[in-house]
Amino acid sequence: MRRLAALSVALACCLPALAAQARDTPTTKELLAASKPSEWRTPDPRDLVYMQLPQGRVVIELAPDFSPLHAANIRTLVRQGYFDGLAIVRVQDNFVTQWDDPNGDDGGDKAKMHPLGKAKATLPPEFTRPIDPKQPWTPLPDGDVYAPQVGFSGGFPVARDPAHGKEWLVQCYGMVGVGRDVPPDSGNGSALYAIIGQAPRRLDHNLAVAGRVLQGMPYLSALPRGTGPMGFYDKASERTPILSVKLAADLPPAQREKIQVLRTDSPTFHAMIDNARHGHNAFYPVPVGKLGICDIHAPVRVDGKPLL
Amino acid sequence: MRRLAALSVALACCLPALAAQARDTPTTKELLAASKPSEWRTPDPRDLVYMQLPQGRVVIELAPDFSPLHAANIRTLVRQGYFDGLAIVRVQDNFVTQWDDPNGDDGGDKAKMHPLGKAKATLPPEFTRPIDPKQPWTPLPDGDVYAPQVGFSGGFPVARDPAHGKEWLVQCYGMVGVGRDVPPDSGNGSALYAIIGQAPRRLDHNLAVAGRVLQGMPYLSALPRGTGPMGFYDKASERTPILSVKLAADLPPAQREKIQVLRTDSPTFHAMIDNARHGHNAFYPVPVGKLGICDIHAPVRVDGKPLL
Repeated sequence: MRRLAALSVALACCLPALAAQARDTPTTKELLAASKPSEWRTPDPRDLVYMQLPQGRVVIELAPDFSPLHAANIRTLVRQGYFDGLAIVRVQDNFVTQWDDPNGDDGGDKAKMHPLGKAKATLPPEFTRPIDPKQPWTPLPDGDVYAPQVGFSGGFPVARDPAHGKEWLVQCYGMVGVGRDVPPDSGNGSALYAIIGQAPRRLDHNLAVAGRVLQGMPYLSALPRGTGPMGFYDKASERTPILSVKLAADLPPAQREKIQVLRTDSPTFHAMIDNARHGHNAFYPVPVGKLGICDIHAPVRVDGKPLL
Repeated sequence: MRRLAALSVALACCLPALAAQARDTPTTKELLAASKPSEWRTPDPRDLVYMQLPQGRVVIELAPDFSPLHAANIRTLVRQGYFDGLAIVRVQDNFVTQWDDPNGDDGGDKAKMHPLGKAKATLPPEFTRPIDPKQPWTPLPDGDVYAPQVGFSGGFPVARDPAHGKEWLVQCYGMVGVGRDVPPDSGNGSALYAIIGQAPRRLDHNLAVAGRVLQGMPYLSALPRGTGPMGFYDKASERTPILSVKLAADLPPAQREKIQVLRTDSPTFHAMIDNARHGHNAFYPVPVGKLGICDIHAPVRVDGKPLL
């Protein structure tokens, strides 16, 4: 009984016994099991960044449709081995986990900084892009506190301002952003962060977004929080080292994760949105009726198994 | 330079050098430093629950104005030593950390369950309360995806439905909810969870809220995620044990934390809301103009020092 009490905190997606009742709406697991192969997208291996930490691998999908110059610069850095031997420098509760070159931070030894090599030191601030009506667009109909419109495009959460013809990636949980200095062009992809708490919407269209963590998020979110200001680690020994960062494209195919993302313009993703808004079961008898942009994510599967 | 690049991911609150510029709006740190003593509330020690884990202490403030019967039942359980020796049973990424009696879960030894003793096994479902116009109410003016109105009352984030005369606590990051079974009255406070990710608004007014974590949140959010379904730990050895749970009121005053919470009807909290909406500095030159209910929290200070 108590196990069910504990289970019952879960969302409708995880109550298989109850969902079997005729009147319950399907669970996410059931929707994905019924999905067609064509509804799943295999990311381009040049867009998949594998960050190997001691505890496991984080897979990040770059978003070149939104930040092409940052994607290209990050690929250059990765291919030069720039990130190998760097570290996670900061973990701030309910905010970000950040990784970069600790020797570039206060107290670091600048002579030991990894060189940018062929990568650019500054980039145009790819904070927004023009709305392109030809791009796939799956709107969420319930509005947003911060932006005139929200929805999904290419697997990513997006906000739009039609009056100014612009859209941008929303910095939801698991999104990976580009650290920068005060000048808007000072971000170059060598300092990156992942959102590990409530989406800090203040960052939207103020910092570029490099992409999204597809796999391995707990390796970033479950780290000890730094005790220095803003969650920086005070001691080098506290930092999780980055063993290596590679592009999937540069690994033999046998070493690549067979990773796919549900297309956000697919019938199954539309069904997931409907489910989130109108779903009900014995535990949640009244549909919530609404859905916020950071309250649903494009599902990921590895070797055909959804990461739920 | 790079340190500043890393720092620059932070919100306006943490750029003291930049904020010193004449045109920058104050930082949160500055606002709190200028606050008056009368703007800080000392919670009733009968509402402060100290949960001692091996890594440190979590302090939870109960919300008896919203869930008085749950608060009373939790106090009864605490005073019976019910929670001592229980454990954190579940940590699900971007969702909850949950603690209860593992022997009540599947595979547990029911004969070894801690008895509820004088505590009640079921409670009326304190999911909402009638709107009382005499209660302090600090509205947020930018709306909400899920509720007709949002704001703060007594230090807690609240959503309101004026058409039905009801309000309820919003399950933002750090809020502590009451696990239950399918029957709405089956929650009794013996199974609790804290939100460790994006606010799961689906839970609002569907599960009771016991209160809010004031201190020690990383001890709940930085735990390894459970690898079982929904983040449950598969092995007993993975669970963080709860060493003891006590009410501040039952400790000698010298052993109590000197903890205070900024009043959410105070001028300083109003200034923080204004700052979040209209603030700007060199890093964020354009005010965001909006603020969501889970994007600001009532500050906490211990021994006069804000936990920022």
